[in-house]
Amino acid sequence: MENILFFAEADLRQYVIRFFEHFDIPSVDAAIAADVIIQADLRGIASHGISKLHQYYGDRLHAGKINTHAQLRVINETPNTVSYDGGNGIGHVLATRAMKTCIAKARENSVGIVTVCNSNHFGIAGYYAMMALEHKMIGGCFTNSEALVAPTFGNARILGTNPIAFAVPALNRPSFVLDMATSIKPLGQVLLHEVQGKPIPPGWGINNRGEVTDVPREIIEGGALLPLGGSEEMSGYKGYGLALLVEILSGVLSGSGLAKEVGSPMSTEGPPANVGHCFIAIDIESFRPFPNFVEDLEKLLDWLTESPRITGESRIYIHGEKEFERTNEYKKKGIPILAPVVEELKSRGEALGVPFNLVSFRSVP
Amino acid sequence: MENILFFAEADLRQYVIRFFEHFDIPSVDAAIAADVIIQADLRGIASHGISKLHQYYGDRLHAGKINTHAQLRVINETPNTVSYDGGNGIGHVLATRAMKTCIAKARENSVGIVTVCNSNHFGIAGYYAMMALEHKMIGGCFTNSEALVAPTFGNARILGTNPIAFAVPALNRPSFVLDMATSIKPLGQVLLHEVQGKPIPPGWGINNRGEVTDVPREIIEGGALLPLGGSEEMSGYKGYGLALLVEILSGVLSGSGLAKEVGSPMSTEGPPANVGHCFIAIDIESFRPFPNFVEDLEKLLDWLTESPRITGESRIYIHGEKEFERTNEYKKKGIPILAPVVEELKSRGEALGVPFNLVSFRSVP
Repeated sequence: MENILFFAEADLRQYVIRFFEHFDIPSVDAAIAADVIIQADLRGIASHGISKLHQYYGDRLHAGKINTHAQLRVINETPNTVSYDGGNGIGHVLATRAMKTCIAKARENSVGIVTVCNSNHFGIAGYYAMMALEHKMIGGCFTNSEALVAPTFGNARILGTNPIAFAVPALNRPSFVLDMATSIKPLGQVLLHEVQGKPIPPGWGINNRGEVTDVPREIIEGGALLPLGGSEEMSGYKGYGLALLVEILSGVLSGSGLAKEVGSPMSTEGPPANVGHCFIAIDIESFRPFPNFVEDLEKLLDWLTESPRITGESRIYIHGEKEFERTNEYKKKGIPILAPVVEELKSRGEALGVPFNLVSFRSVP
Repeated sequence: MENILFFAEADLRQYVIRFFEHFDIPSVDAAIAADVIIQADLRGIASHGISKLHQYYGDRLHAGKINTHAQLRVINETPNTVSYDGGNGIGHVLATRAMKTCIAKARENSVGIVTVCNSNHFGIAGYYAMMALEHKMIGGCFTNSEALVAPTFGNARILGTNPIAFAVPALNRPSFVLDMATSIKPLGQVLLHEVQGKPIPPGWGINNRGEVTDVPREIIEGGALLPLGGSEEMSGYKGYGLALLVEILSGVLSGSGLAKEVGSPMSTEGPPANVGHCFIAIDIESFRPFPNFVEDLEKLLDWLTESPRITGESRIYIHGEKEFERTNEYKKKGIPILAPVVEELKSRGEALGVPFNLVSFRSVP
């Protein structure tokens, strides 16, 4: 088992703020970006947390590829919608501000839809959807991303793993939070199998000849991920359709880069990434009283979690429950970070002049 | 190969209108329902077309289970939203009127979201999403349905095949029309395999012990369909999450029946089906000029259809293309109906007093 170190949430948060401030990002913006990144780690989505601090953000900031002082600029605005140009700013900051606007629109006028073009990688889509929860709203978020996914019958990376996120507020149990890539798995899972020297379950992706492979390297080098569903026989064209829908809502509607035009969050060369996002907020009380809504929602979720299980499974989950429980756990015992990631944060932080000198208060071998 | 008879679209349409009028449904409503049903056949979705005329609608109308003169009643209304009670009316009629309202709201205020509770089976969800196309809008539609799908790790039918439909307008090529059940396959596909005496691909569903089976009968009797993605390893919890999201948007938000409370479209007993729908319309020009939107959309779709294919596949499709081409073909050469379905329409039509005496103008053995 790999060595894991635990860090206090507050320590990690302060470090990430210092990290972004080092690049001359305004403190208020640094705090916004840090919150999204720490929430990813708290929810157990380490692939979008502090482990990507240098790869996704620091390296690109160092190369001058992200505008540290970008402001959202209104392209079009109506009482229910805004189309923003993000000015190639930090994705987390642009997205948080855009979702705030979206919620304000929904508060005034029942529904808000806001798009952002010319943005960057914004972390976990679920964060922005969840911003709606405390406002008694349903929140939604879509983004396009670097092309990694082949369409059904296709052999090339055309679409991103384009996530869909929706959050729906409950009161007496964790809220429903769906945050899913529209590919079967993200590339990070394939990379993880390679690092661990394990084959991947056949179906996650194809090699450069378009054949399903269980060799991670064949997907990583010239292969492609497959959309949710996988083969046509298993309705992979539905996952392909969802990925394309997300590309349309977040890319075409916003006027951002599309598909292969969208830059990689790891690239320190080339033009701006030009990522596009789309946010939606729906005021529940415009439809029915919130208490009635919550009562019905919780009844439905209870039916699911209390329904008969297949042999060997102890629990049926609602989306967001695992993440809710992890957050509570990590807030108490600390956020776990793999030792190699800590080493990288230390060596790269030192080189950058933002030393990662936090105390890990417990270590589990 | 089964014997297929071809009928003129106009003849079938007139028959369906006469059929509904026979049940004392107002002519204007009968024409609305007929249009949705004929569009299903024109698009090649026979499972939601005239083949279900008696099973889904006639039998229930005969049993007095659908209110033939129901009107949409406003529960809540804002400039952007309406929450309707459908009064247990014909699903197609309620849904068409609700989507019209939704589009009118979006025309005035950029976005419309409309829910309907206390409705019935409404045919193909894509029909209502497509109503937005001619208005330069993105249309969306969700509905809950009879419980047939097990959640991940679950062993019982809790959620419906809850479809998601989105339509996005193109100009120089067929519009994008995604119309998908959130299960891997609808139950109709399993029934079809049983009729044909064929095993189903393992993964579509489970038997009453929760095991994946290739025997159609084991799914039909006490088993369940699996959500898009299938097993947890292949991210079936995403399809489960989408099915649950649809249940929330169309059921919880509308105040309709939920999950196991939703009646079967084939039942001639029990309380009203209490199906719930949700519709959305998004005015594209609130975000960017329509010509720019279409130019980008068509560029994206071209990239997909022109991208490299896997060996043995001649074409990469955009969602809605096959249906668009079928519609053009069937408008010319007639709508194909399987001979056994024609026989049933004849015998049951005769018994009902609405004889199916149409001329089939070509027959392909």
